[in-house]
Amino acid sequence: MAKVQTPSGFRDFLPDPFRKRAELMRRIREVYESFGFEGMETPCLENLSVFAGKAGAENEKLMFKVLKRGADLQRALEKQDELADLGLRFDLTVPLARYYATHRAELPAVFKRYQIGPVWRAERAQHGRYREFIQCDVDVLGSSSMLVEAEVVLATAAALAKLGFSGLTVRLNSRPLLRQLLHGLGIPEEQAGAVLIGMDKLDKVSFEEVKSAWANLSIPAEALDRLGALFSLAQAGHEHGAREELLREVEARAGQGAAPHVAQIRQILHLTPPLPSGRLVFDPFLARGIDYYTGPIFEVAAEGVPFSLAGGGRFDELIGKIGGVPTPACGFSIGFERVYVLMEERGMFGGASRAADVLLAVPSEEACAAALKLGTNLRAAGLRVDVFPGVAKLPQQYQLAEKKGLPFAVLADPAKLNAGNVEVRELATRQNTLVPADRLAAWLRGRLKIN
Amino acid sequence: MAKVQTPSGFRDFLPDPFRKRAELMRRIREVYESFGFEGMETPCLENLSVFAGKAGAENEKLMFKVLKRGADLQRALEKQDELADLGLRFDLTVPLARYYATHRAELPAVFKRYQIGPVWRAERAQHGRYREFIQCDVDVLGSSSMLVEAEVVLATAAALAKLGFSGLTVRLNSRPLLRQLLHGLGIPEEQAGAVLIGMDKLDKVSFEEVKSAWANLSIPAEALDRLGALFSLAQAGHEHGAREELLREVEARAGQGAAPHVAQIRQILHLTPPLPSGRLVFDPFLARGIDYYTGPIFEVAAEGVPFSLAGGGRFDELIGKIGGVPTPACGFSIGFERVYVLMEERGMFGGASRAADVLLAVPSEEACAAALKLGTNLRAAGLRVDVFPGVAKLPQQYQLAEKKGLPFAVLADPAKLNAGNVEVRELATRQNTLVPADRLAAWLRGRLKIN
Repeated sequence: MAKVQTPSGFRDFLPDPFRKRAELMRRIREVYESFGFEGMETPCLENLSVFAGKAGAENEKLMFKVLKRGADLQRALEKQDELADLGLRFDLTVPLARYYATHRAELPAVFKRYQIGPVWRAERAQHGRYREFIQCDVDVLGSSSMLVEAEVVLATAAALAKLGFSGLTVRLNSRPLLRQLLHGLGIPEEQAGAVLIGMDKLDKVSFEEVKSAWANLSIPAEALDRLGALFSLAQAGHEHGAREELLREVEARAGQGAAPHVAQIRQILHLTPPLPSGRLVFDPFLARGIDYYTGPIFEVAAEGVPFSLAGGGRFDELIGKIGGVPTPACGFSIGFERVYVLMEERGMFGGASRAADVLLAVPSEEACAAALKLGTNLRAAGLRVDVFPGVAKLPQQYQLAEKKGLPFAVLADPAKLNAGNVEVRELATRQNTLVPADRLAAWLRGRLKIN
Repeated sequence: MAKVQTPSGFRDFLPDPFRKRAELMRRIREVYESFGFEGMETPCLENLSVFAGKAGAENEKLMFKVLKRGADLQRALEKQDELADLGLRFDLTVPLARYYATHRAELPAVFKRYQIGPVWRAERAQHGRYREFIQCDVDVLGSSSMLVEAEVVLATAAALAKLGFSGLTVRLNSRPLLRQLLHGLGIPEEQAGAVLIGMDKLDKVSFEEVKSAWANLSIPAEALDRLGALFSLAQAGHEHGAREELLREVEARAGQGAAPHVAQIRQILHLTPPLPSGRLVFDPFLARGIDYYTGPIFEVAAEGVPFSLAGGGRFDELIGKIGGVPTPACGFSIGFERVYVLMEERGMFGGASRAADVLLAVPSEEACAAALKLGTNLRAAGLRVDVFPGVAKLPQQYQLAEKKGLPFAVLADPAKLNAGNVEVRELATRQNTLVPADRLAAWLRGRLKIN
């Protein structure tokens, strides 16, 4: 029999990872809600026009498109027209902009929202790259205040703290400041992209190595020297004393027009209270990949981890671009899948939750009704009860319960349930205990420490 | 400016309906878990081959298909081949069968699962018909015991009870028994479909009216008489005394081969303890629309509601059809969207939950940092805190909080926070109270009755 396949690049979730992922989402949601971010939802599909020209050609290329249907499809085939009319969202930000443009009148003047949900990208299927994955965003629409930046940074740091992370570095920069800085350093605009990609590798390789890779880029030598000097300063600048020196140096190098962007960085640093899971640092070389950022940008790095755990920034132009009333906006997105893998690797999930508290073992056909009735009673007492689905040899029933990680099994013997003691099996030790039938729920709750 | 559109037939969810829907899912999930059903997840997309010939031509026709990409698409266009390779799931059952076929070795011998998630159908967009909607299923795979039927009925009834429903009718029948019964009554097989559709209307119109609509179907008159007589008996049969008479009559009418199916019905009725939200009745004319059912089927009806709230049944052949090891299976699905609409109409959501407990109003630029710090402290004390995102006139800030349904606002005045009393505004009454700064969290928790 041929193996039945999960579609390439997609994942099934078995019960154990499902539980952990649900727990991860629950904790993040709780923190977001504690900041007053409201839950909302957009459809997983949008009209194709919504996605066009919004988040960079790269993301658009990776979009799954939905085939037109019926007569529309026939017409498109005849006219050699676009065959698709809908697309699966590749992020949560473009649909948010569409949602806000559609519903502005029904939403609060300043809209704080969170969303946790799947997105789809037609990536080449490979290890650790998935075609369906969860994104996890907070955003504030309708305010230009840097208080918003401080708050999304704080909420994201609090969510990561709630997951058990500490010692993180939240890197802060400004997209327009970065552009001006590279120009001020004398880097030709057409080389700026390559330079930023190189700078991004500086946590793994030395500046000299990166520089030698740029040999054929025709960047003036003195520009590279200035870049190197600023990089050294930035490395030191993570200490509070040196931070002001770094800000002043960047402002001087970036030249005219940099002042308001530097002032925003200063303001965010001033406003943000100490973070529960790390520290906030100014990093003049942080770039972020996405096209739509227009102001401050941020990213969360963990010691020894070669990817960022979260990223975000201000995108004041996206809602206008999509056809809505131009509205300032800023958001921060946690890299759910990466965080999950990291937590799994580091054993950060603690005691796995169990599928149920107790199995009711069914010794005979006659016991079925008694088991279902006992299950109802135990559930009414707040227990999670798994009735064995059918009749089977007892060892087979206990084995199923062990495999599912259940702590106890109770033998649903109708005679014993009516009068006397029922047999309770502790599955880890395989010890049986007789418990008075009328005290069973209380006994189990006590042993399971359920209050 | 042209209105930016949600795609036709799809929905955006604003914060209030989002909260109610999330609450609905939470309660259903809690009940399912209390029965030991395990959470799991499949991708939203499957290879097209998975869907082919599994759940009836109707559902397949309504599938959204995903366009092939790159060279595959070019090749398909040249060869006039199938243009799509993936499809968006139109239910949660076919993907479950695929999942089980793929992962049988990693799953418990008997797999009890629940899943709550979106499905997609390219319905004609119209009022109350959506192209993306939530399904909400429990299933047991790997057991032929009627205990499974009893348990999915019980779990579904318990979930509906948890949502506040009572007085429901869970209708029970058997697909093979129904086929044999219609044959035994003398209804020609090719008319069976039309007859069942007519029978389905009998809660709204009389049997005579339905019969006259069948005038041109060439059904023997004596078959219609027998049908009418049995229908009358079934109407009475919902009382326990008459139930046995109805079962015997159906068994006699259905003729040879009906006995095991009637025995299954009897067994389910015997096994199922009293339902928390209604009663379980045998209804010999219940049909259910889906092709893959092979045994008992069920549906939940509410008084005065012209659609069913939940439906399900046994589908022992689906996993084999999909290419897996043939495995018995049975499930029950709650019509989430219909239940939501009904609960909203009947005011069953009770006091709406609020987006946050308290707004921190920010009177000046200087107050921003103090507000963020106070927010951090109040959150650490277990409160959900919305900091106003920026500086604005106080009435505007209070108005936002009122609009979002927040109970309290606190004026984040740095001077007063350091020493003395802070101003707390009860938004419903617009009364201000001075509260000692060091007792603020306790005072709010007390007023909000948070323990």
